[in-house]
Amino acid sequence: MTTVVARPHPFDVATTLTRSSSGSLFGNTTADYANMVGPFGGITAATLLRAALRHPDRIGDPVSLTVNFAGTVADGPFEVIADPVRTNRNTQHWVLTSLQNGVVTTTATAVFGTRRSSWADTELVAPRVDDPDSIAPQQFPRGLAWVHNYEMRFVDGGIDGLATGEPAGSATTVWLRDVPPRPVDFAALTALADTFFPRVLLRLGRIVPVGTVSMTVYFHADADTLAGHGDQPVLGTARAKRFAHGFFDQSAELWTPAGALLATSHQMVYFKA
Amino acid sequence: MTTVVARPHPFDVATTLTRSSSGSLFGNTTADYANMVGPFGGITAATLLRAALRHPDRIGDPVSLTVNFAGTVADGPFEVIADPVRTNRNTQHWVLTSLQNGVVTTTATAVFGTRRSSWADTELVAPRVDDPDSIAPQQFPRGLAWVHNYEMRFVDGGIDGLATGEPAGSATTVWLRDVPPRPVDFAALTALADTFFPRVLLRLGRIVPVGTVSMTVYFHADADTLAGHGDQPVLGTARAKRFAHGFFDQSAELWTPAGALLATSHQMVYFKA
Repeated sequence: MTTVVARPHPFDVATTLTRSSSGSLFGNTTADYANMVGPFGGITAATLLRAALRHPDRIGDPVSLTVNFAGTVADGPFEVIADPVRTNRNTQHWVLTSLQNGVVTTTATAVFGTRRSSWADTELVAPRVDDPDSIAPQQFPRGLAWVHNYEMRFVDGGIDGLATGEPAGSATTVWLRDVPPRPVDFAALTALADTFFPRVLLRLGRIVPVGTVSMTVYFHADADTLAGHGDQPVLGTARAKRFAHGFFDQSAELWTPAGALLATSHQMVYFKA
Repeated sequence: MTTVVARPHPFDVATTLTRSSSGSLFGNTTADYANMVGPFGGITAATLLRAALRHPDRIGDPVSLTVNFAGTVADGPFEVIADPVRTNRNTQHWVLTSLQNGVVTTTATAVFGTRRSSWADTELVAPRVDDPDSIAPQQFPRGLAWVHNYEMRFVDGGIDGLATGEPAGSATTVWLRDVPPRPVDFAALTALADTFFPRVLLRLGRIVPVGTVSMTVYFHADADTLAGHGDQPVLGTARAKRFAHGFFDQSAELWTPAGALLATSHQMVYFKA
């Protein structure tokens, strides 16, 4: 008889935090999610969210998360401080910090809330697109590690222009999925919200220096909706509003195949061009 | 000869912080900006931003600000802690906290940045609307104090449905201006971004319990653009994407009359309906 031991998903390895004997939380960057410099921001954001999610005093589920990328995260260990600074009956407010050698690399705040049934409506309309199976997954060069943890099937606004030098609009519609497939929980959803390439690259049709300075995720799905979604692909859309003075914004939405809005996300990005 | 002494603008009074002998920063709520319970959130957000703006170690101008409303602010004094946790060559990261009697009422983070000339483009198109002078300013009941500090000339998506009980869509276009007129600086812009009534009220055509839990402002304008804008009215648009499980989002844009995008803003709001 052969015993099959399930290997943990690379995402879970990358976002794991362990408590040291002094009580501090520590994580470790992994080569799997390396970006050009330091780890993929979505993994950093997901790791900070997990620090609150796994905290013994946590109440409710994530409602909003803002992560500010203060400095480069070096390969290796980092410390995370998760402070539930205010707990109300139905909401809880977190201040989250990541440090390396005592220097702040990332700041974040999160609001958790107890969800209850309420009047509901989605005003935004999900894009009507072809099934993911009918679109070939994007092939990526080996150089950039983190993208290989995601299957991206571009409906439009892909990255071909980066190879051909062709400027384009900033809008992208893409089917996204963890590789290998993994149930979409709040942490995975956070990382998925950061998988959209910086819009300025699409607009200019070339690689320029970029770095997200602040990213916010609003969680519209409750835990039941995520459990029902499982590991299906997520439909993502993203676009920018304005580029100026070395900064631009981009906003994104993440949908289930059935058209339920899981999350919306916004970020401000530094660029040099 | 009569000497005219200019009275400070109510906005400046409400957002003033003074340093106590112990070195702590203190503010005071003012009746002018009172909301249903506690002060108007936009004033709280602007006050926290001012704590960073006036800090002697500040570099650059605001790029992004996220404010989390953790609990009711009682009328009276409050303490503000403004901590520049990381200063880079061109960006600076702030953690901001407001407390009353040692209890956290508001958390915030901000990113400041040195703006430089860069490639620029605005993808979003400003709404084409009638001049503010051709639209009558909305009259408000005396009960709610803070709205009387703003002139609101609704192009569409006004609040008439709240009086008649008529549900409507969540989109609003409105000319906004401080009363009396005041130059739009980063602090005033922050407060203006929170002047859009909670979208769920428009959707339902009735007043229900609401409270913003988290608000983010992205500053697209640099200081020169704001100086050029002066105290002209600002054109604002707002709409929601999804209402569910007792929370909804709303996004807003603020434009100059000439069509320059000054700021974009997003918030998650608790509601009961």
